[in-house]
Amino acid sequence: MAQQHLEPTDATAGVAADALAGYLRAQATEFLRALRQHRENGGAAAGGSEASVDAARALRRSARRISASLHTFRPLLDPDWSERIRPELAWLSGTLALEHAYEARLERLLLALHRLSGAMLPTQADLAAGSRAAGAAPGPQKAAPASAASGNPATPTPDRGNLTVGAAKAGALLDRQLTLARTRAHSTALQALGSSRFHAVADNIAVLASEVPLSATAEATPLHPLAAAAEDRLKDAVTALPLVTAGHPYNAEALIHGLSPDPSPHPQDAPWHQVRLLLRLHRYAREVLHNAEMDAEIVDVRLLAAGEALDRHRDASEAAAAAAQAARTPRIAPATAYALGVLHADQRHEVEAARFAFQQAWQKETVSTP
Amino acid sequence: MAQQHLEPTDATAGVAADALAGYLRAQATEFLRALRQHRENGGAAAGGSEASVDAARALRRSARRISASLHTFRPLLDPDWSERIRPELAWLSGTLALEHAYEARLERLLLALHRLSGAMLPTQADLAAGSRAAGAAPGPQKAAPASAASGNPATPTPDRGNLTVGAAKAGALLDRQLTLARTRAHSTALQALGSSRFHAVADNIAVLASEVPLSATAEATPLHPLAAAAEDRLKDAVTALPLVTAGHPYNAEALIHGLSPDPSPHPQDAPWHQVRLLLRLHRYAREVLHNAEMDAEIVDVRLLAAGEALDRHRDASEAAAAAAQAARTPRIAPATAYALGVLHADQRHEVEAARFAFQQAWQKETVSTP
Repeated sequence: MAQQHLEPTDATAGVAADALAGYLRAQATEFLRALRQHRENGGAAAGGSEASVDAARALRRSARRISASLHTFRPLLDPDWSERIRPELAWLSGTLALEHAYEARLERLLLALHRLSGAMLPTQADLAAGSRAAGAAPGPQKAAPASAASGNPATPTPDRGNLTVGAAKAGALLDRQLTLARTRAHSTALQALGSSRFHAVADNIAVLASEVPLSATAEATPLHPLAAAAEDRLKDAVTALPLVTAGHPYNAEALIHGLSPDPSPHPQDAPWHQVRLLLRLHRYAREVLHNAEMDAEIVDVRLLAAGEALDRHRDASEAAAAAAQAARTPRIAPATAYALGVLHADQRHEVEAARFAFQQAWQKETVSTP
Repeated sequence: MAQQHLEPTDATAGVAADALAGYLRAQATEFLRALRQHRENGGAAAGGSEASVDAARALRRSARRISASLHTFRPLLDPDWSERIRPELAWLSGTLALEHAYEARLERLLLALHRLSGAMLPTQADLAAGSRAAGAAPGPQKAAPASAASGNPATPTPDRGNLTVGAAKAGALLDRQLTLARTRAHSTALQALGSSRFHAVADNIAVLASEVPLSATAEATPLHPLAAAAEDRLKDAVTALPLVTAGHPYNAEALIHGLSPDPSPHPQDAPWHQVRLLLRLHRYAREVLHNAEMDAEIVDVRLLAAGEALDRHRDASEAAAAAAQAARTPRIAPATAYALGVLHADQRHEVEAARFAFQQAWQKETVSTP
């Protein structure tokens, strides 16, 4: 496998520690700014404004980067302090992420239901033209659900069976369940932001913004080997993925066990979720190094594409599980259950498509570097 | 688009008419042989022997070739006679094909259900090893349903919900419905083979085996332009297919309208079914030409691959429709309906995979010929 370690620079270890501290201070400052913005924009009200949603995202963004840096560059930081604050940051970003996750999941599932319902029954000519138009913009992405705007899956066609009504009922059921989950996540996030536990985190971050607690050996510890180790962990995890299978389109792996007794979570997804986290750690470690070298941050588009594929993998995996979960609701109509089955399988194929996209992105990366 | 017309030879038109007559006589003889074999091997008994199934297949095989040749090389044949016998041959091969089609459809759906049920819950290590093993034998085909041999989808896992029981019930429902359809098709085929209509067909074929009714202009009509016209009809139909979309893996086209009120038949499938028929006509026309040129028949593997992809497309399309149809059965349990929904979507993705396979096969063909 091609080695792609980041090249060491002339920077001495002492400069490296300063750079890490600078990066952490900047992220801590960003965290405090986002927190202030969140409070100013009515983050406490249910169904917060767009500005408060942005602020929550910025909070999570900096919390993730601080936590990742404490992990990757552990030997440079006060071990007691960093071991204490990491789980707190994970708790915070996890709690803040849930509300948005439920909202995005519902949106993804409703869009898919609209696409699958195609309430307008097009003519053959329409279909052919539509297919060719979709083909004109190549890419493995799903076609935009053009019918969603004009079609209405709730319109029953009495002489044609009740499956479209099934899609509408499935949508209503998912809406109810995921909106409830989202409302609960919102309350939990509000409670978290008002808790003494959160205030302790915020106090810690406020300290970090001015004074980074470095370890006694920080001045003598270079950043590069630690960043390289993070990259190696990513590469090892990718090597363990079934990438040969993933690179063969329509391998039908993702839906294996689609009807197994425990579809949520699919155990085959776990290694991919793990790679997603390791890819993120690698990306943040690169940010710290670029900071150390005073470079403008160079965005690696291939790394971005790989990360986006894994985000899509995670989202589709969780959406598929939500559809399967909804199908276990007692006393639903068979037509509703059927629609949820189609939806589940559709999202599992999205999982498979995301693995294919990751394989393509990753392959490009290892091919183009010597 | 690259022209790939078969090259004219030195054979005069008179020789061509003889060659066509020779081909038709050979196919008629084969038809009569298969008919005799079918009767000798208890074709009349319900659930006929393997030999009688082979004989029925051979009957259909020669009936298709005779019918196709009458169509493609129409100007060489007595028009009254050939217009009269073609629909009769279509009726016969259609009637004989149904029983086998229902049997194959049921087998396809039950295999898919076993694959989707994965009654054995494998460990992560098993999954990784299995995925790599599947990857070692590359190809876009579905992995063999290895779990089908050892797993049993009917085994309920009481503390894990009822979806596996759903798969078992879906299998039982499909078994009941498709076995009933198959039994009816068997009776219909038996009635057909005992009917005066069939005896008239057999008499016509017996005449054909000794004396082919050529048209007055047959001696002056060459075969090549007619075969080239059949090839052009195929190429035109392929050109109208959404091949650019089909060539992008995971384009999610085949499941669009998966929940529309009338999923059976999917209108988007029709042009592909049409290409399948035109490809067959082209292949049979090639057989006649090779016969005329006294060549050993050269099997074009790319044409075969394209044809197999279209067979798979047709089979998956019809299996998906059967799953959707079964889901409309009154009073089924939600878990059964859910399993049928997953199964329907799985088969629609097989449809999409078959289109991808066709695109790949077809592309190879046009690229490698000048």
